[in-house]
Amino acid sequence: MKIIVNENYVLRIPDNLSMDRAAPLLCAGITMYSPLMHWEAGPGKKVGIVGLGGLGRMGVKIAHPLGAEVSVLSHSLKKQNEAKKMGADKFYVAANNTSSSSSNTQESFDELDGYFDLIINTLSVEIDWNRYLNLLALDGTMVVVGLPEKETPLNVSSLINARRSLAGSVIGEIRETQEMLDFCSKHNIASDIELIPIQKVNEAYPRVVSSDVRYRFVIDTKSLD
Amino acid sequence: MKIIVNENYVLRIPDNLSMDRAAPLLCAGITMYSPLMHWEAGPGKKVGIVGLGGLGRMGVKIAHPLGAEVSVLSHSLKKQNEAKKMGADKFYVAANNTSSSSSNTQESFDELDGYFDLIINTLSVEIDWNRYLNLLALDGTMVVVGLPEKETPLNVSSLINARRSLAGSVIGEIRETQEMLDFCSKHNIASDIELIPIQKVNEAYPRVVSSDVRYRFVIDTKSLD
Repeated sequence: MKIIVNENYVLRIPDNLSMDRAAPLLCAGITMYSPLMHWEAGPGKKVGIVGLGGLGRMGVKIAHPLGAEVSVLSHSLKKQNEAKKMGADKFYVAANNTSSSSSNTQESFDELDGYFDLIINTLSVEIDWNRYLNLLALDGTMVVVGLPEKETPLNVSSLINARRSLAGSVIGEIRETQEMLDFCSKHNIASDIELIPIQKVNEAYPRVVSSDVRYRFVIDTKSLD
Repeated sequence: MKIIVNENYVLRIPDNLSMDRAAPLLCAGITMYSPLMHWEAGPGKKVGIVGLGGLGRMGVKIAHPLGAEVSVLSHSLKKQNEAKKMGADKFYVAANNTSSSSSNTQESFDELDGYFDLIINTLSVEIDWNRYLNLLALDGTMVVVGLPEKETPLNVSSLINARRSLAGSVIGEIRETQEMLDFCSKHNIASDIELIPIQKVNEAYPRVVSSDVRYRFVIDTKSLD
């Protein structure tokens, strides 16, 4: 099979990245890499990653080698060890978890008020913007890369009090995507995936919907033969 | 009368600024100067000022000599001539004005989608953030300097689509305030005020509440003798 494409839209997958684990980098990888670079995550910067699904995991893996101090804000402590193995320096339980002990949750958030230079929020559910914005330091930015279905109320005093920003970001350009692939190659970063043949797609889809996949399904196109 | 103050908190009012018209610069002036400088209003930048009260007027007066293209988004066309005299390049009727003709309003906003690099929103009433955010270009920022009483719904797709930011800002530091006074002196900028003796304060207050003042009351402290 041959496919003819415009050379401006071809990306080179470095040799040390496997094709299957590199595939989601072209979406989840660049979605996290682009805001981390644009808002200058690096040495001396405190970066919070909200949510530890497919996007959040890429965020931790990329922010760590950039030299930032990386904290994960998750809805439960379950993923703490896993997060630290990926490079997270700190792990907190987020305030919107009603199932964890309230004292634990409360403590986590109180010590973080005004703490972060950059928060990347990967959740696609409605959250309390104001609570997260208050975790930002002076001139801090929270970047939203998920898209909640509903509009959510914003109290601008959270922004005004410390010249904070709430921003949005969506994937990235081709040049930046190649840069991200080269960065991932250099630091041996890839997505965590489940490889399936096309024949299993109907079984896989309900697991995507229920967030059961760890953390992206990749379809092996060999199975199309 | 003598007052002893800490030298770190003393500001020098340049000789060519009258004391009464300089007084509100220490609040409205620095409130607008600080975000205009921080978000780099200047040549080649398209700046929108929402609202033309005491804050908005200072915004126009400062952004114009900075070299930015200045547009005013107001709730009615009434203040158009006045805005242009102060240095506004363009004037639009905002979408939340139900009293103006709908066709006029609609046209103004349609041609502005994706237009501004920086919008400074001086309104303290609840507004539709999303409609204003859509007026921003790629990497544009809307800075809120007013404080609406209620939380207002935010649709993050407005932010995500063009890496836009919604930010807040409140007055500025002492060094920056002196810089603003010197800038106003150089460009002959002052606040528009009504000077009253302390004896008139009970008559003035209801006019503040009903936004009747043009545009700040300043109390002449000589009247305290």
